[in-house]
Amino acid sequence: MRASLDFWFEFASTYSYLAAMRIEALAREKGVGVAWRPFLLGPIFKAQGWETSPFNLFPAKGAYMWRDLERLSAAEGLPFRKPDPFPQSSLKAARLAWTDGVAAHRAEFSRRVFRAEFGEGLRIDADSVLGNILESLGLDAGALLAEALSDPVKLRLRRETEEAMRLQLFGAPSFVTPDGEVFWGNDRLEMALNWASQEH
Amino acid sequence: MRASLDFWFEFASTYSYLAAMRIEALAREKGVGVAWRPFLLGPIFKAQGWETSPFNLFPAKGAYMWRDLERLSAAEGLPFRKPDPFPQSSLKAARLAWTDGVAAHRAEFSRRVFRAEFGEGLRIDADSVLGNILESLGLDAGALLAEALSDPVKLRLRRETEEAMRLQLFGAPSFVTPDGEVFWGNDRLEMALNWASQEH
Repeated sequence: MRASLDFWFEFASTYSYLAAMRIEALAREKGVGVAWRPFLLGPIFKAQGWETSPFNLFPAKGAYMWRDLERLSAAEGLPFRKPDPFPQSSLKAARLAWTDGVAAHRAEFSRRVFRAEFGEGLRIDADSVLGNILESLGLDAGALLAEALSDPVKLRLRRETEEAMRLQLFGAPSFVTPDGEVFWGNDRLEMALNWASQEH
Repeated sequence: MRASLDFWFEFASTYSYLAAMRIEALAREKGVGVAWRPFLLGPIFKAQGWETSPFNLFPAKGAYMWRDLERLSAAEGLPFRKPDPFPQSSLKAARLAWTDGVAAHRAEFSRRVFRAEFGEGLRIDADSVLGNILESLGLDAGALLAEALSDPVKLRLRRETEEAMRLQLFGAPSFVTPDGEVFWGNDRLEMALNWASQEH
């Protein structure tokens, strides 16, 4: 059976950007298949009493994070531009990712959303930005933006977020192996792939 | 001039244990001198409204951290045993580290405190545990435990913690280069040493 890894990410999350840009090449080297699973951190943060990103709640940590992201993006050769506002509203992008029409393109759609957001500083709650991304993939933007508002798609994203809670995920990105091992953070991507590629 | 790096750590901090055990060998490879600077995170956490470790305040994050530490310790070949209670009271160990008598042995003293705490699960607020460590270094335990309670030593630790606040440190370990670049976490040790060893 082919080794696999669940890649849980949040479109508003800075370190999810780095992981999204790195994961496929590294996974290929290890022979690991990746399931892209966007979810919402907002409800998880709210459940512990946070109304916004911890990077906004704790300013010293936030200032550090932006500098860290700048350094890491430079080291990876990735463009970086801080979006305004932060965090971006990621609901629409996450719902789009779970439409049937985007399903076959979910990884590439997600990378393009991240690149627009953190590489170009664009707003990912804007239909124009998301529409351009869908069209760049050869997809029907109008139809998909409508499908994203349908009940089955809303329910799908809600269930994914509930599953993230059941797994006790508390941040993004998180990586979960078939045997239930959880790795949190872009810094653990390599370790997660190693784990997924070995017998336990 | 020889490259140098300030290693800010907290004796109660789990990831400071890993960094303390790793830093000297890696720093030697890079030709970087390390200044060991124990400080107290308690006052910094209190200033943002936390009365204990965030790993206790946020249980999912705490459970993950213990598993992560177990995996990382195994990967490094380091012993690991969860101390009880957590976090340990680190005040006495930190004051001891700043006594004149321990100054010349601060790195080795610190490693032995960490190994007792996270390798053997011992209490680092116990005079017997700290006394054994001091004696294992050939030092006068009774005299140093008394010196640790002197005003100059208390003041030294307080000033270090104030300096950590001034640097906007919010967690441990943190690494600070002479040009003021801050790196947070055991995961950033290699990057901090690379930065310190290069011209900027």
